[in-house]
Amino acid sequence: MATIFYTATSLDGFIADPNNSLDWLFQFGELEPNTFEAFLAGVGAIAMGSTTYQWLYDHLSAEADNPQPWPYLVPTWVFTSRQLPTMANADLRFVSGEVEPIHRAMAIAAGDKNLWIVGGGDLAGQFYDAGLLDELVVQIASVALGGGAPLFPRRVDPPLQLLSAKTYGHHFAELHYRVLRPHG
Amino acid sequence: MATIFYTATSLDGFIADPNNSLDWLFQFGELEPNTFEAFLAGVGAIAMGSTTYQWLYDHLSAEADNPQPWPYLVPTWVFTSRQLPTMANADLRFVSGEVEPIHRAMAIAAGDKNLWIVGGGDLAGQFYDAGLLDELVVQIASVALGGGAPLFPRRVDPPLQLLSAKTYGHHFAELHYRVLRPHG
Repeated sequence: MATIFYTATSLDGFIADPNNSLDWLFQFGELEPNTFEAFLAGVGAIAMGSTTYQWLYDHLSAEADNPQPWPYLVPTWVFTSRQLPTMANADLRFVSGEVEPIHRAMAIAAGDKNLWIVGGGDLAGQFYDAGLLDELVVQIASVALGGGAPLFPRRVDPPLQLLSAKTYGHHFAELHYRVLRPHG
Repeated sequence: MATIFYTATSLDGFIADPNNSLDWLFQFGELEPNTFEAFLAGVGAIAMGSTTYQWLYDHLSAEADNPQPWPYLVPTWVFTSRQLPTMANADLRFVSGEVEPIHRAMAIAAGDKNLWIVGGGDLAGQFYDAGLLDELVVQIASVALGGGAPLFPRRVDPPLQLLSAKTYGHHFAELHYRVLRPHG
């Protein structure tokens, strides 16, 4: 069981543009769906922040007469300090506060499977701060945005351990890192 | 002849930390020196901004009784709007203003060789804005800095074309991009 921040980012380190849009990402269409599907098959619990959830909600609900279903079968913890709309047929758990107790609950729900931190960057950073983040998998899109929501607003020390770098066509490089702990 | 922005960056897209330091980079020692040496052997002219030059100057002059020589044999254009100290035995050309005429002068000096834009990110962006940047070669160090001098403060459109992704040990991934022009 590993806790993994798996996300797309621009080359200059933004996961959403200055208008909080992902249009820059979706211009590329699906990124090797089998890669993501294989990752998702190993996931037993999901965590995301309120901005990420709201974006997903808006995106799925965009066509009022043809709403899209919630895409995940495993339980999803949404970290939020405000009231958010819920979705039908979705195992959503709205929470706030420290990540440690939520991480324990996620781990129990996930069993042997992985925990996926969807984003944003600060939520992933909170798991990192608590020593609970094990891996980063970053798909770097072939664009710079010049500003936006930061990928990982933390000073990382000790350095991450780069495990692999792969290309997916001309539009994505995927970097896979292990998080090293200061002591062991 | 190609104009290439060749630089190291953090995973979160900073080329210097919030204190304008490169200590986070030099903790890793030399990055596969032969890679850089092979690149440098193909370079016929260099451009850098005043902050980059000043950092390099300070770094080389740090030990007053044992100053290090300027490391480049080819002419270096330093874009600056302020007075900067010069160095002995260095072909330095302090300039200001638009990049186009400087690029022409660099190309003449370089002949068949490449032009290296050392940084910072905004100077590389000025070459990009003028349609004069051909490639980006980015060594992504296995750290996040959380802030600092931005890698490439531009909105890039159309997307770059990713040519390759390589690992250099656990501490660097090198991504190589071609810049595509909006029209042709």
